[in-house]
Amino acid sequence: MMANKALAAFYYPEGIAVIGASRNPGKAGYQVVKNLTQGSYNGPVYPVNPAVGDVLGHKCYPSLGSIEGRVSLIIITTPADQVVDIFREAARRGDVRAAIVVSAGFSETKDPAKIAMEKEFLALAGQAGIRILGPNCTGVINTANGLDTTIEPTVAQTRGGISIYSQSGAMGGSILLFMEDQPVPLGFNKWTHSGNTCDLDVIDVLEYYGADPGTETILLYTEAINKGRQFMELARQIAPRKTILVLKVGRTELGVKAAYSHTGALAGSNQVYEAAFRKCGVLRMLNLEEMVDTAKALAMQPLPRGNRICILTEAGGPGTIAMDELGTSPLVTLAEISPAGQQRLHGVVPPISIVCQPQGYIDITAAAMEEHHARALQCVLEEDGVDGVILLSVPPTYLKPESLAGAIIEAVRGYNKPVLTCLLAGQWVREARRMLEAAGLPTYATPDRAARAMINMVQRQEYLRGLEVK
Amino acid sequence: MMANKALAAFYYPEGIAVIGASRNPGKAGYQVVKNLTQGSYNGPVYPVNPAVGDVLGHKCYPSLGSIEGRVSLIIITTPADQVVDIFREAARRGDVRAAIVVSAGFSETKDPAKIAMEKEFLALAGQAGIRILGPNCTGVINTANGLDTTIEPTVAQTRGGISIYSQSGAMGGSILLFMEDQPVPLGFNKWTHSGNTCDLDVIDVLEYYGADPGTETILLYTEAINKGRQFMELARQIAPRKTILVLKVGRTELGVKAAYSHTGALAGSNQVYEAAFRKCGVLRMLNLEEMVDTAKALAMQPLPRGNRICILTEAGGPGTIAMDELGTSPLVTLAEISPAGQQRLHGVVPPISIVCQPQGYIDITAAAMEEHHARALQCVLEEDGVDGVILLSVPPTYLKPESLAGAIIEAVRGYNKPVLTCLLAGQWVREARRMLEAAGLPTYATPDRAARAMINMVQRQEYLRGLEVK
Repeated sequence: MMANKALAAFYYPEGIAVIGASRNPGKAGYQVVKNLTQGSYNGPVYPVNPAVGDVLGHKCYPSLGSIEGRVSLIIITTPADQVVDIFREAARRGDVRAAIVVSAGFSETKDPAKIAMEKEFLALAGQAGIRILGPNCTGVINTANGLDTTIEPTVAQTRGGISIYSQSGAMGGSILLFMEDQPVPLGFNKWTHSGNTCDLDVIDVLEYYGADPGTETILLYTEAINKGRQFMELARQIAPRKTILVLKVGRTELGVKAAYSHTGALAGSNQVYEAAFRKCGVLRMLNLEEMVDTAKALAMQPLPRGNRICILTEAGGPGTIAMDELGTSPLVTLAEISPAGQQRLHGVVPPISIVCQPQGYIDITAAAMEEHHARALQCVLEEDGVDGVILLSVPPTYLKPESLAGAIIEAVRGYNKPVLTCLLAGQWVREARRMLEAAGLPTYATPDRAARAMINMVQRQEYLRGLEVK
Repeated sequence: MMANKALAAFYYPEGIAVIGASRNPGKAGYQVVKNLTQGSYNGPVYPVNPAVGDVLGHKCYPSLGSIEGRVSLIIITTPADQVVDIFREAARRGDVRAAIVVSAGFSETKDPAKIAMEKEFLALAGQAGIRILGPNCTGVINTANGLDTTIEPTVAQTRGGISIYSQSGAMGGSILLFMEDQPVPLGFNKWTHSGNTCDLDVIDVLEYYGADPGTETILLYTEAINKGRQFMELARQIAPRKTILVLKVGRTELGVKAAYSHTGALAGSNQVYEAAFRKCGVLRMLNLEEMVDTAKALAMQPLPRGNRICILTEAGGPGTIAMDELGTSPLVTLAEISPAGQQRLHGVVPPISIVCQPQGYIDITAAAMEEHHARALQCVLEEDGVDGVILLSVPPTYLKPESLAGAIIEAVRGYNKPVLTCLLAGQWVREARRMLEAAGLPTYATPDRAARAMINMVQRQEYLRGLEVK
């Protein structure tokens, strides 16, 4: 519970001082004040800079000590050599519980003098009961109260149940921007970046997210996990309640070297991680796209009740590609459509359709119009042997994508089984994808990405079923 | 040379009859006439339909036999049961050399009666010297003369050196739409779809593309290669001159089953294909995105002269991800920057940069502005030990992406080494990506996709170097 209390001071501060606040839009000290005061966050923010009277219309304090109100969080954007003194001043105040050190130029430089400075302020903070995110980091975003301590251009705070942790600010930012850049922006709950990670790390944040009522799915980007055993034990405790997706580099020797260069941490043996993640119920992602694709599926759709997946396609090529990808997972099997169900399907699809050859795979062909898609979809969702459906279509010129999307949205109502969709055709299906996602049906750029997201859902489901058996 | 002559009648017809031409926009016979007459194609087009006087203002002929002008290509969009008679009529004319059978309902249904119909018209065509694309196909596009026989919404015919063959119309269409949906549309030369492939197949098209002066890079989507030995021999002849990228499904058992369901062809052993492709210099692609990413790199940039790749990044996370991906290839090594080059780099990058730790990897950090990116890029391009560069950046709020793009475009002028870029930040970098691609610098959605495209370029280069050694 230590981590929870410590991190609450970051996500729900009582007062925020921005030390190094600036009127220069090119400076971090400007952007932080801007993001804190021009978004939806309503708590008190105190810019600190002895040289100016105000920043963006907010009164500037000459020093941290001169702020009368309570300050539980300080954000430091000054040059590195001032940071130690700032922690001395913060310690003297007595009310500061949390510090985000945006300033860079510490242990990441591998310069002994600069490493020593980082150790020095860490020790001061430890004595004063101040916990640290950073240095060389951009802090946190909390969509629950609109808080944004980052130096990024203002992030659209679409609310959702996904919380994100990244050791790398650039990757953390990229995850958010990928989530925003979907047909319908994918919301999030909290976002945390720890940079050099001199104090609070992935384990602390994971513990907080694990207990946080607003967080349903946890996304982690990490280059190294120093306390591996502790991480795995914590993940094992959280995984039964919340899905944990990890993008961890270091699959190859070059990746390990780069990770060391980036944060000075040793990435560790890939095989060991792989096995440990699996055992603890952590889903390991291969890349950024798989991570966001899978988070989207989990956010929008129920888990499949089993591992029997049906592919319903309007085109053989995309169907074959999705099958090829499903086949990479030993966990997934094709759905079983009953003889009666197959007969019903034959009654609602174009005559040249290929029904259940192989079993669980249905190609309704380019002759399929809206109602063929919709009725075939209902037929397979009705089947006991179907736990989830991947619906693929490349709407030809005579099938309006928007009209197809409308029919699909109607068809899936009332079924509690996951349906992942892929409409392939660039600009032609853009609005249809937006409609589907607005109605809660996730869409994917390619058939293999839809299949990969479904594999991850099945893996999650199989993990949970394994727990019940125990 | 048989295939070349036969296929020329498809790409460069002397007169085209559209049998089953229709005034109903929901029919293929309408869309084909529309695409042939409302685009930039200028050759004679004769709609055939006894029931109507004209289609889209073009005089309609009551029968194929009643057309006075020369007809070298017929496009058949009628119901399946009329197709045999149409081939009889085409044989009587004597001038028809090529037929695109759009009509479906033949061997793909696995119905013996319908398979027999396909065999019957194939035999008639053989006797009359008519070659066939299809049935169940949409034909060809040729940007050299504006020809578009497809039933797709009009395709933007951006010209380029990439030619595409797809056994699946949906996948063929998707490749084109992905190419069009880049920051700057990626042009193409010819596009061919063979559907059920009763006559002309991937081998014939590959042979044509191999000899076609307008084709520099060949993209193939195939589910099965029936004459494997012949395909590999042909690829071996073409690969020294043109890059062949193959997306072939059937990596897994499920994929093999779906491919059989789709086109009735056996996908064959994956291991055998894998080895054969490598030996013949064919680059196998894992998915649609890798195929278009790689084609873009080849279309815009020179090949690296060797396998020594430099990663220049403004952010550690993306740099580490690119390194992790580069590390999956046994062919690629990191670039060697000379001691003098490292010293020059230290002089032009922010002081906290990480230069060549490890060798060939440079992290100029988020402190890097336009000129840091540009000068570091020039430094590494100057180095003899650098054969190619992956440039990664996540422009923060104080670095305008458009201004960064401009600096990068200036910096690479005059160097004949490939530079692949990845600006990560969704909408924020959209215009910068467009600028880079307009200037011939390919951009990628993620660091690993940029690295993967570079790996494929190195593989191509290593294959060509292997030929020289022999």
